[in-house]
Formats: sequence, C-alpha cells, structure tokens
Amino acid sequence: MDRRSFLTTTAAAGTGLAALSAPAIAQGNMTWRMVTTWPKNFPGLGVGAQRMADRITAASGGRLTIQVYSAGELVPPLQALDAVIDGTAELSHSAAYYWQNKSQALNFFTGVPYGMTTGELSAWVRYLGGQEIWDEIYDQFGVKGFMSGNTGVQAGGWFRDELTGLDSISGLRFRTPGLGGQVWEKLGATVTNMAAGEIFQALQSGTLDAAEFVGPYNDLALGFYQVAKNYYFPSFVEPGLATELVVDKAKYLDLPDDLQAIIRDVSQAEYDQVTADFIANDPRALQTLVNDHGVTVRQFPDEIIEAGANASKELLLGVRDSSDDLTQRTATSFLDALRLLRSRTQDADGAFIEARRKYLEI
Amino acid sequence: MDRRSFLTTTAAAGTGLAALSAPAIAQGNMTWRMVTTWPKNFPGLGVGAQRMADRITAASGGRLTIQVYSAGELVPPLQALDAVIDGTAELSHSAAYYWQNKSQALNFFTGVPYGMTTGELSAWVRYLGGQEIWDEIYDQFGVKGFMSGNTGVQAGGWFRDELTGLDSISGLRFRTPGLGGQVWEKLGATVTNMAAGEIFQALQSGTLDAAEFVGPYNDLALGFYQVAKNYYFPSFVEPGLATELVVDKAKYLDLPDDLQAIIRDVSQAEYDQVTADFIANDPRALQTLVNDHGVTVRQFPDEIIEAGANASKELLLGVRDSSDDLTQRTATSFLDALRLLRSRTQDADGAFIEARRKYLEI
Repeated sequence: MDRRSFLTTTAAAGTGLAALSAPAIAQGNMTWRMVTTWPKNFPGLGVGAQRMADRITAASGGRLTIQVYSAGELVPPLQALDAVIDGTAELSHSAAYYWQNKSQALNFFTGVPYGMTTGELSAWVRYLGGQEIWDEIYDQFGVKGFMSGNTGVQAGGWFRDELTGLDSISGLRFRTPGLGGQVWEKLGATVTNMAAGEIFQALQSGTLDAAEFVGPYNDLALGFYQVAKNYYFPSFVEPGLATELVVDKAKYLDLPDDLQAIIRDVSQAEYDQVTADFIANDPRALQTLVNDHGVTVRQFPDEIIEAGANASKELLLGVRDSSDDLTQRTATSFLDALRLLRSRTQDADGAFIEARRKYLEI
Repeated sequence: MDRRSFLTTTAAAGTGLAALSAPAIAQGNMTWRMVTTWPKNFPGLGVGAQRMADRITAASGGRLTIQVYSAGELVPPLQALDAVIDGTAELSHSAAYYWQNKSQALNFFTGVPYGMTTGELSAWVRYLGGQEIWDEIYDQFGVKGFMSGNTGVQAGGWFRDELTGLDSISGLRFRTPGLGGQVWEKLGATVTNMAAGEIFQALQSGTLDAAEFVGPYNDLALGFYQVAKNYYFPSFVEPGLATELVVDKAKYLDLPDDLQAIIRDVSQAEYDQVTADFIANDPRALQTLVNDHGVTVRQFPDEIIEAGANASKELLLGVRDSSDDLTQRTATSFLDALRLLRSRTQDADGAFIEARRKYLEI
C-alpha cells in the first residue's frame, strides 16, 4: 500500500478552508469535519470514507452531518491524525500505520508482514484485547480509533522480469514502503519510495525494477501493466490493510449515547463493506489486466516466500522487544492472538479454499 | 448447522405472549418484536440476535426498542418467518435456508455445499446483485432480509471411527441436515436427522456413527467428544452459514429514514461481529477439546473431498435448472459470482494462508 504518493502529490493543496467552515450547531444539529489520507474517489478507500460520512449523516437523521475533506483539502494527508489532535477536524479516515512515528505499536492495527487476515484482525480487536490496547495508545493523544475497512490480501507487486528465486531479489530496485519494505530489504532488495505518480515513469525508464501499490482494483488505473507484465500474488508482507476512523475522544464522549453508537455501528458496517468492495472489484480489474493487457499472474518462488517469513519474524520480534511498554504489550497480544487464530484459518478456511480449488469445476 | 434440534426441542414452548405485549407506541417510541430460531444465549447466534436488538435500541436512542423472543417463546422456531409475514412479530433473526419450502433459492443466502466463504457471500450480496434478487424473492412475502452474521467455515463432524476413504462412508449413519445431508447421501451415507439433545445418546449407543452440528464453539457444550473422538475439518458442505434479519417490509418503509438506516447499519455491523465471535472462540473451544478431552482433529481423505465436490456440483446445477424462474436466476447469479470471486480467494487469501502455514513459525 502506498502512502507517499498521496502525501507528496497532495501536500501542497492544504488550504485555509478551516477558517471558512467552523463546526456549525444549529437547532441541535452539528457538522463535523472528516479529514482523510485518500484522494477523492480513490477506489475502495476514498470512496469508503465518503460513504461512511454519508451513512453517519443518514443514521443520525442529520443531527450529525459529516463533511469529508480529501487528502490535502484541509490539511496535508500525513497530518490527518494531527488535525484531529489539534482540533482542526473532529474525525479522520486513514490507516493507523501512517502514525508509527507516534508509536510503533500502531502498525498492528493496520496490518504487519505475515500478520493477520481481515477476519483475524477483527477477532483480535473485538474479542481478544486488541481494541483495549489500541484505546490505551490513542488515549495518550486524546483520540479514539475504530476499524473502518480492510483491503484484504494485497498484490505482491509489479515486476519487469520474472523472479526465479532469491538471486532475483539481490539489488532489485523495488518501490515498497513501510514494514513490508523493511522485509524486502532484508531479502536483498534496494527499497525506494516514491509518489504514485512517479512510479510509471521510473518503471519505464528502468530506474525501478519493481513496484508495489495495493491490488488490481487500485493498480489498474495507474497503467503499470504497460511497463511491467509480471504481477505477483499474494503479498506476504501485506495480508490486509485495515483503515481506521479516528475521533476526537472528548467530543465523542460529549455526544449523546445514540450518536456514539451510530459512529461505532457504521464503522463496523464499513469494515465489512470495504472488504466486500475489494473482494468484488479486485478480480474484475484483474480479468481486465490479464485479458485486455496481457498481464501474467505469478506466485513468488517458494524460497522467497520462506525467506520472507523468516525476515518478517525477525522484524515482528524486534518490535515486540522494543523498549516501549505499550508496543511490547501490543505485539505480545497480537502474536498470542495470531497463534490462536491461525489454527482455525488454516484448518477450516484454508483447507476449504484448497479443496474447492482442487476439486470443484463449476 | 442444525435446525431440527431447536425446532423439535422448543416447538412446544410457543405461548400466548402475543396477547400480552402488543407493539407499544408512546411519545413516538415504538417497541418491535424480534422472534428467533435460536435458543437464548446460544453461542454466536442466539447471543448475536440479542446483541443486534440491543444495538438497534441504543442507536435509535430508544425510539425503536427491540424485544427478543428466543426459539419457542412467542412462536415455534420454524415459524419465525411466518410470524413476520402474519404480523405476530416485526422482525426475525434466523437463517434463510430454513424457508427453502417457500423458495429453494433461499438456500443461497445462507450458504450451500462447496459455496461461498463469509467474505465472498458479502461481496455477492452487496456488489454483484445478490441483495436485489433476494429482495425480489422476499417481496412475494412482504418482507425484506439483511444478512446479520456468519459462522464461517464449519466443522465436518464427529465420527466414531476414522475414515479411510469413500468405503468408510457407505452405509454410515450420519446425522447431517439440509443440502449438506443430500451431498452426503450421494456419497453413500445413510443420513438421518434428529434433535441436538438426542445426538449424544445415539452416538453412544451406536445408533449413529457420526454427527455434524456447527463447530467447536457450539459443539463443546454438547459433549460429543465423550463418544466420538474423531473431529473432521473442514466441512466442505458448509463453508459458512449466514444469518438473516428479516423485517416486515411495509412497517420498515413506514419508519423514518434514520431508523431504516440504523437497521441496515447494525445488520451489517453484526455480520462482522458474529464472524469475529466465531473466529475468536472456535479455536479456544477446539484447544479445550484437544488438550482436555483427547479429541483428534482430522481432515477428510482426498477421495471424499473430491467426491463431495462432484456431488455438490450435481446438486447446485440441479437447483439452477429448476423450473422456478427466481431460483434459476438466483443460482445463476450465485454461480457466476462464485466463479469470479474464487479466483481472488485462491490466489490471494488461500495462497497467503498456505504460505504462512508452511513458513511462519512464531
């Protein structure tokens, strides 16, 4: 998943809108501002932020109207959380791992290499202590987070040349950000970050050998298929990216109970809705890539997948052993939950998916 | 998933409560009745129905209070939908496949053998035409359905003896209801149905060789592990059971828009919540079964899984080719969506789960 793209391309667009539209309270109705890290209409995520705002507005009967500001419209995207902390906005729609400079623990509430699937993450957050630790972390900043979507398992990336094994990774110039990038660095890649708008040109000129963005639904529009025909699945470093709705905690607690409930309910409904959007639209986009644009879908060679697991383990245990108490506790809780949940995912979900793949021709 | 258990054991409990509590309208507040097919506090599902009622009540600020009647409290469980149709209740929390006597097409909105996973079903219903066809079916009865939960991939069942291949199925006396039972019949099993409360005794006495209920979270309490030590995963005939919230359509459309939105939002939030509940609690129950009760977890032999796929295909195509137009269109829409969605599930989710199983030791 990309961050710098939006950050770089839209940072200049921050304007003085704040002065124009102070939160309105008329006849008991309020208007709250939601800043986002997504461009307007960005598939799945930007669309999801707007839909969530509309759903809260509708369920509240207009008592709480949410006004969405896309990346850069009110503040630069990487300042979305700060905008809630400093009172510029009441809400942000974003992803917690963008704020890992505030706490490394926040990575776990978005997704980490070889980490949790969409369903596992929800089970950890809602039933195995995840939300409680997340609340502790965000309490330090006077905000509260709710999960608000998930991309599901992402694509591994676009590669100019086919990969034959670990040798193919050595020195490979690969655009892939975040913790996933750190894993690829451990495997020998030369990891670089650049804005989404620059990737195409860099792949075409050979400045980049490979690039990873999100998945077919988002990648199709960017045209990478024109300059890199090998599309690898799955990403083992991004088994899902959960988005978050963050709310100013004091203002949230000042809301009547029914409006608090509506914000919680809509966030959770959107966790399912965004997931469904990617599940439905990724394969349609992939069909276009394969059938109309000659893209070849590949899986990473086993030795890369295996080395990736070892590098991810090293990375996750490193985070767990950090000096920060909350990060330690978050990682420990996450890994304990992962150990428990993966058994069901493997023996039930994984085994069913494999059985259907092998035997159901319909 | 079991139906007759609740149906048989609780049918006698239907009472005259209806006369005691007519829907109340006071100061604009309403009380609606929700009948369910689940026993009170039944893990995952009965608990989910009560939680959904509480969430609607909370999000509406008490303007719409939902009163839950467990299986048999107001009407017998298999009359839950009829109770909404005839106005005895405004809502029911149940599973659409219980009403296949009204339309075979309703099976698809719960789950069918070798069918869709939790996420796929949501993608079909929300993005690929499923809800629209479902609405057409229920319009005939003056009701509207929303998905309200999913068990995820269920267990394959409890078997007294280990299965070595298809030969082991021949004449096997197996309690497994519904379309799944029809698949097992095609494989040679002698399928019987009996109430949940009778299964234990039948397994113990040898009247039954095997029984299937839901999964560890629900099965643990019933004690089957005392009389059948082989617990098979996954169920290929029940890759998930979606629950439904059904509402009287005319009364729903008479609600103000915000209350309609709240019912929709809470239903979808519960789709995620119930799923998370099973994901978190199935493996905890399974650990208890294995560690404390000596249960052995097994996978069905490949030739059973393969024959099950062929039998399921035959069954699903048979439903698709039925004489009923809506059933034909539902099955066609479902199968088209399944063909599309399974590619992503296999290449992204399935491949990731398998990579993590093989290589991540943490």
